[in-house]
Amino acid sequence: MKRLTDLTYGIIGLGIMGGSLAKAIRLNILSRTNSTGRIFACNRSTACLVQAENEGVVDKTFTTDQVSQMLPECDVVFVCLYPHATLDFLEVNKNNFKSGAIVTDISGVKGIFEKRLPEILRPDVDFIIGHPMAGGEKEGYANSKAEFFIGRNYILIPQNYNKEDDLNLMKLLINEMGFTRITITDCDTHDYKIGFTSQLCHVIASALVESAGDEQITAFGGGSFEDLTRIAMINAPLWTELFISNKEKLTYHIEEFAKRIDQFKNLIQNEDSKGLNELLEDVRQKRIRMGSVKTVEKKNNGDLSR
Amino acid sequence: MKRLTDLTYGIIGLGIMGGSLAKAIRLNILSRTNSTGRIFACNRSTACLVQAENEGVVDKTFTTDQVSQMLPECDVVFVCLYPHATLDFLEVNKNNFKSGAIVTDISGVKGIFEKRLPEILRPDVDFIIGHPMAGGEKEGYANSKAEFFIGRNYILIPQNYNKEDDLNLMKLLINEMGFTRITITDCDTHDYKIGFTSQLCHVIASALVESAGDEQITAFGGGSFEDLTRIAMINAPLWTELFISNKEKLTYHIEEFAKRIDQFKNLIQNEDSKGLNELLEDVRQKRIRMGSVKTVEKKNNGDLSR
Repeated sequence: MKRLTDLTYGIIGLGIMGGSLAKAIRLNILSRTNSTGRIFACNRSTACLVQAENEGVVDKTFTTDQVSQMLPECDVVFVCLYPHATLDFLEVNKNNFKSGAIVTDISGVKGIFEKRLPEILRPDVDFIIGHPMAGGEKEGYANSKAEFFIGRNYILIPQNYNKEDDLNLMKLLINEMGFTRITITDCDTHDYKIGFTSQLCHVIASALVESAGDEQITAFGGGSFEDLTRIAMINAPLWTELFISNKEKLTYHIEEFAKRIDQFKNLIQNEDSKGLNELLEDVRQKRIRMGSVKTVEKKNNGDLSR
Repeated sequence: MKRLTDLTYGIIGLGIMGGSLAKAIRLNILSRTNSTGRIFACNRSTACLVQAENEGVVDKTFTTDQVSQMLPECDVVFVCLYPHATLDFLEVNKNNFKSGAIVTDISGVKGIFEKRLPEILRPDVDFIIGHPMAGGEKEGYANSKAEFFIGRNYILIPQNYNKEDDLNLMKLLINEMGFTRITITDCDTHDYKIGFTSQLCHVIASALVESAGDEQITAFGGGSFEDLTRIAMINAPLWTELFISNKEKLTYHIEEFAKRIDQFKNLIQNEDSKGLNELLEDVRQKRIRMGSVKTVEKKNNGDLSR
């Protein structure tokens, strides 16, 4: 298997995710002695490229026009664009990838990938569908950091055409970047479950902010409203695309959630103390059993994890 | 005005809130040189009383049967019981309070106080309606801490019978305990706004946990679900009482929220990218303007704040 320390990594889109991936690779992999690896980055606007190069995070930068010079050099390419833009990028740059390269994405919806990928793929380029489950309410390279992935999940969706060696390299890379857990699944399950844990939560947070009649209402808060709506500092174009790309599964989850909200409303309206108490006790027990992704034991990455 | 360092404080109910109040008073007020003040505590079960006395947090403890010996000594009494139990306690112990004492509560609903208090009150005991806006998902004295109130709101609901000196003493005490902001309001406004920022949020978090079909779903999470449902590790009997005691205002908020959820569902179902993008942009701007209770500038408490 190739050595992670000797590869050339390409980052397409140097925002919060692309930037954090670059920083995690720099810190945890390429800072080792005898490493010969490099990080190349391409971005539409150049300010973040200059910053990342000055900070020593990336070795060489490329504008969008220059990407055809960058891709033939890259052994592993992270395409960190919006979902449809990722697929468009793969299509346009089909002939630019290095033979034998691993190409991967970070998209929050996968159904559209399963549909379009077969037409786009080249047999000698291994596209691995992935989804690093990390994010911040603030966008952009300026908010990226190497520690972003510590304690987080990475979802991988292997396809029958993926080479085993490439999947193993990808898993090793994910682990070295600081992720705690790799979850293997298929596109349909991904979209169903992410529709619940991520997209539904963003819809709820957004609806809650919209239903606040008074923007000064946090003067009466104990922190619950802030906790529930932190993710509502939302990147509107991205989430519009994610919601609509996963329309059927997401609306199913919204409807199920609305039924539960209605159940609570009825118990309260009927002053059904016994029923409400039982339901809340069930909630408590369920929530405790569900635990927290953040308490999952961190794998020991050796002395390189900081 | 009386000196905070020389008062005898009584805590009725030494759970997470009562315990944190005791610890904050001990740390920030009674640890000063020349302080002659004391903290007395009463609780139904005795384990926490023993612990608090051993830890030097309280000076003297009382079982429920002994409360009539405790109250006549206390200058400031925090009744940290459930809402209806607080009112019952005030009624039963009406004749036990020290003349000139300040008595206050921590209840999350206030409408029931406005209704029942006038019959219960003694003219020489000043009852100040209050609500410290802090809480944790874990109950009990074991989870209390002095730092619990730092950066938090305290709501005060002065009544026309409250003495100005007592209100000023209470405000000083709140400030010294570490709270960042005191919000003055009336019972109706309190219940309306807390119905939104606190109770609605707990209903939403609970409904979200209940609508999770699969308890392993956090394996697919990036933290959003955990953030939205942390408060769902809920104290069922307490919140049953809070929800039902504020039934009308809470069901109004639930209905308004449900309308917003429905609005999102329709935009997604109709693939209305433009409308959804505009709505999410509005959410983002609103949420940014709302800021965070935690970023409110902390008042300088002098060298006693730690």
